[in-house]
Amino acid sequence: MGKHHLDFFMSPQSVAVIGASRKSGDGNFNVIENMLNFGFKGNIYPVNPQARDIMGMPCYKDVRDIRKPIDVAIVSTPRDLVPKMVKNCAGCGIKGTIVVPQGFADADETGKALQKQLTEISQRNGIRILGPNTLGVVNAFSGFTSSFMPIKRQKVPVGVICQSGIFFVGASVFTGMMGKGIDVANGCDLGFAEALEYFGQDKDIRVIFAHIEGLPEGRRFFEVAGEVARRKPVIALKTAKTGQGARAASSHSGALVGRHEVFEAVFRQTGILSAGDAGEVLDGTKALLHLPPMKGNRVGVITFTGAGGIILIDALQEQGLELAALSDKTIQTVKTLSPDWMPIHNPMDVWPAIMKNDLNTVYEKALTQVLKDPSVDGVMCIAIAPDPPERFLDATGVIQETAARFPEKPVVAYLYGPNQAAVSENLEQGGHVVSLPSLSRAARTLGALYRRGRFLKMDTARRVAG
Amino acid sequence: MGKHHLDFFMSPQSVAVIGASRKSGDGNFNVIENMLNFGFKGNIYPVNPQARDIMGMPCYKDVRDIRKPIDVAIVSTPRDLVPKMVKNCAGCGIKGTIVVPQGFADADETGKALQKQLTEISQRNGIRILGPNTLGVVNAFSGFTSSFMPIKRQKVPVGVICQSGIFFVGASVFTGMMGKGIDVANGCDLGFAEALEYFGQDKDIRVIFAHIEGLPEGRRFFEVAGEVARRKPVIALKTAKTGQGARAASSHSGALVGRHEVFEAVFRQTGILSAGDAGEVLDGTKALLHLPPMKGNRVGVITFTGAGGIILIDALQEQGLELAALSDKTIQTVKTLSPDWMPIHNPMDVWPAIMKNDLNTVYEKALTQVLKDPSVDGVMCIAIAPDPPERFLDATGVIQETAARFPEKPVVAYLYGPNQAAVSENLEQGGHVVSLPSLSRAARTLGALYRRGRFLKMDTARRVAG
Repeated sequence: MGKHHLDFFMSPQSVAVIGASRKSGDGNFNVIENMLNFGFKGNIYPVNPQARDIMGMPCYKDVRDIRKPIDVAIVSTPRDLVPKMVKNCAGCGIKGTIVVPQGFADADETGKALQKQLTEISQRNGIRILGPNTLGVVNAFSGFTSSFMPIKRQKVPVGVICQSGIFFVGASVFTGMMGKGIDVANGCDLGFAEALEYFGQDKDIRVIFAHIEGLPEGRRFFEVAGEVARRKPVIALKTAKTGQGARAASSHSGALVGRHEVFEAVFRQTGILSAGDAGEVLDGTKALLHLPPMKGNRVGVITFTGAGGIILIDALQEQGLELAALSDKTIQTVKTLSPDWMPIHNPMDVWPAIMKNDLNTVYEKALTQVLKDPSVDGVMCIAIAPDPPERFLDATGVIQETAARFPEKPVVAYLYGPNQAAVSENLEQGGHVVSLPSLSRAARTLGALYRRGRFLKMDTARRVAG
Repeated sequence: MGKHHLDFFMSPQSVAVIGASRKSGDGNFNVIENMLNFGFKGNIYPVNPQARDIMGMPCYKDVRDIRKPIDVAIVSTPRDLVPKMVKNCAGCGIKGTIVVPQGFADADETGKALQKQLTEISQRNGIRILGPNTLGVVNAFSGFTSSFMPIKRQKVPVGVICQSGIFFVGASVFTGMMGKGIDVANGCDLGFAEALEYFGQDKDIRVIFAHIEGLPEGRRFFEVAGEVARRKPVIALKTAKTGQGARAASSHSGALVGRHEVFEAVFRQTGILSAGDAGEVLDGTKALLHLPPMKGNRVGVITFTGAGGIILIDALQEQGLELAALSDKTIQTVKTLSPDWMPIHNPMDVWPAIMKNDLNTVYEKALTQVLKDPSVDGVMCIAIAPDPPERFLDATGVIQETAARFPEKPVVAYLYGPNQAAVSENLEQGGHVVSLPSLSRAARTLGALYRRGRFLKMDTARRVAG
């Protein structure tokens, strides 16, 4: 991995903690304790004029007393002291600070003025500032975090950029997992564009998620995004969509928010996948990590239930996807397995064929044919998630094995039944299939893979033409 | 509970199984075996000319040989034999049949003609027919089911009406639970209106769910629905919304489907809650079972995260809900707990107050005030779902206890964090709070409670006026 000018923030060798807390243990949100629990192996210098030592480490009265090279200072003092602390850091050659406290552009007029001072200090002295109002950074690979909230360390290829710690603490319900994170928060200096550029060149990261309330540096962000999205998928969750939401955002991160339609248009042009809600973030991240994009919009459906197929059709149509016109060969394969009276079309209801033959034979033949069918760009499997005593109803083995033979087409599944979570997890073993908890989410996931494929195709065409 | 003319279908004393299978065990879909496993204690008479006994019971060659009173005959023969079998049942005084096989209006021209014959037999001979193409009925209270698919027996107050077995087998991912079910399927005789009327008068059932592909008996259904919805909530999932979906529906259950906008309008008028997808069915069922309706559209929000509040605002607006203008007293209560610089408004970000004081004190005071506030009709709590070692971040205890003191206003929660499922389950203990897996689903759930409240209010006004 090439050097990036933000490496020192993400993988510091030595860290000062200004305003380090003497209290540790549950409920004290001690940054140093959290950092050690996370596995940080670099040097830590606590700074607190009231303490002699903190968690067994000698404590300094002033950051200027440390007199050793420091990459990053984490500042956790009351807000009025922050500008002075950052200036002191700049004075002793510290490259960057992470300003944790709230009470800046997110608060009152005094807070707004304090934040303006921080921006000026950064511009004048060249010191970089992340925050204020931030959990800072998480890097499970280097073992560093500045978060005072507990974070699980997972070396996974998902990078998170956000304006709120909710996406760090709640990673399991947003992106599902997080290997690295940058909370740009109020963004007095370091913003979305640099964070995105960083993850764009980071070989540890394969999918990038960005939570965006507002983008003061809109043009620059979209220039970077256009570059990065060619190399790896970027999913965005734009919030503060409505007038009320936008007003609330200005008092949360102090962000300037733009019209939602404008964002949507620019997301599309730059190849950013816009997620409608948290569910789409979760499903999209998983799908983009494991499945290939769809090369067109034609979906083949294999189902245990006619009703499920019908619900799906409605959902596919909302995504700009269509039912593939299956080849005669595909139709005939399932027809010969079905009762004479059974009309076979897409969605293919294979239940009558299963009742006549057996589940694994029918499913293997049907899924193989659909995946081979040149009129199909992606496949949806609707099947049952039974409790263990009814394992004979479980199609996950055959779906998994068949999908693995066709890595160039995405296979997503919707499993209904009493044991959805466990059977879905089982189906996802090996990474050949992604299982979604509802038909509409399954359709939206194929929709994301289709939009990703369309962007890559258009982008290639533009390059060839240009 | 008063007698209803469909009682014999839901709680039969004696059942004939025509076309009973000799094979039992896994994967043989044996109706009798399933019925016994479910706990049926009535008389069972297997009918199969090829068998002497089935599962230890004497087997009859013909239903007419039984010569004992029979409430319901389950017919599982090849489709061509079905009309004759139903006629034989009528001939020996059996009140109703459940016709299981596929291959009728869901299939080819022959199948359509066969179904027409069934309708005529029913009209001519007075025998009632459920199906064809049905799993029939489930009644966890009486212990009867005709389903050949395994069903969990749960005595819960949720009634399911559907046109596909997916809602029986997959109950845990649709309504979450099912105490009774009627699969009207192809509906050659017994349809939605009667099924709805039945659950309407059934004291075991408190919430009714209906999956509707098409409604040949539209007018009658909506008359019944208008009556039933006054007494208990009815949630509908209308599928086959789009042109393609509608075409597929006609080959699934042979249903006539109408324009989606028409259904939506009539749902609104009759007080049926229309669910957009399976998630809304699941969340709505749970909320309507446990929480009171909202008396107006004003929501108070208590959050650990400004960003979460902002996402929520967008979602509330889509539901016709608005942020309550909190009273001065409510604002002051949280303001005195917060740092001076913290602006307090709705959504109320209580995190700075928690950092200054402690979680339980702050949450108890804030939630009590919001619930007492006359400008609030319902409350949303956004909090963390921590892993067990971080239990000090867990607000579920205080939310639960405080909500229990105000049973007249609904409290829903959204918990983000690494342990969402388990902490949500814990929060829901006692039935005072419902926890949803995303902010948009939480907003839609409040939306359903608001629409339920609005319908009841309008309905009362109409009665008073009329």
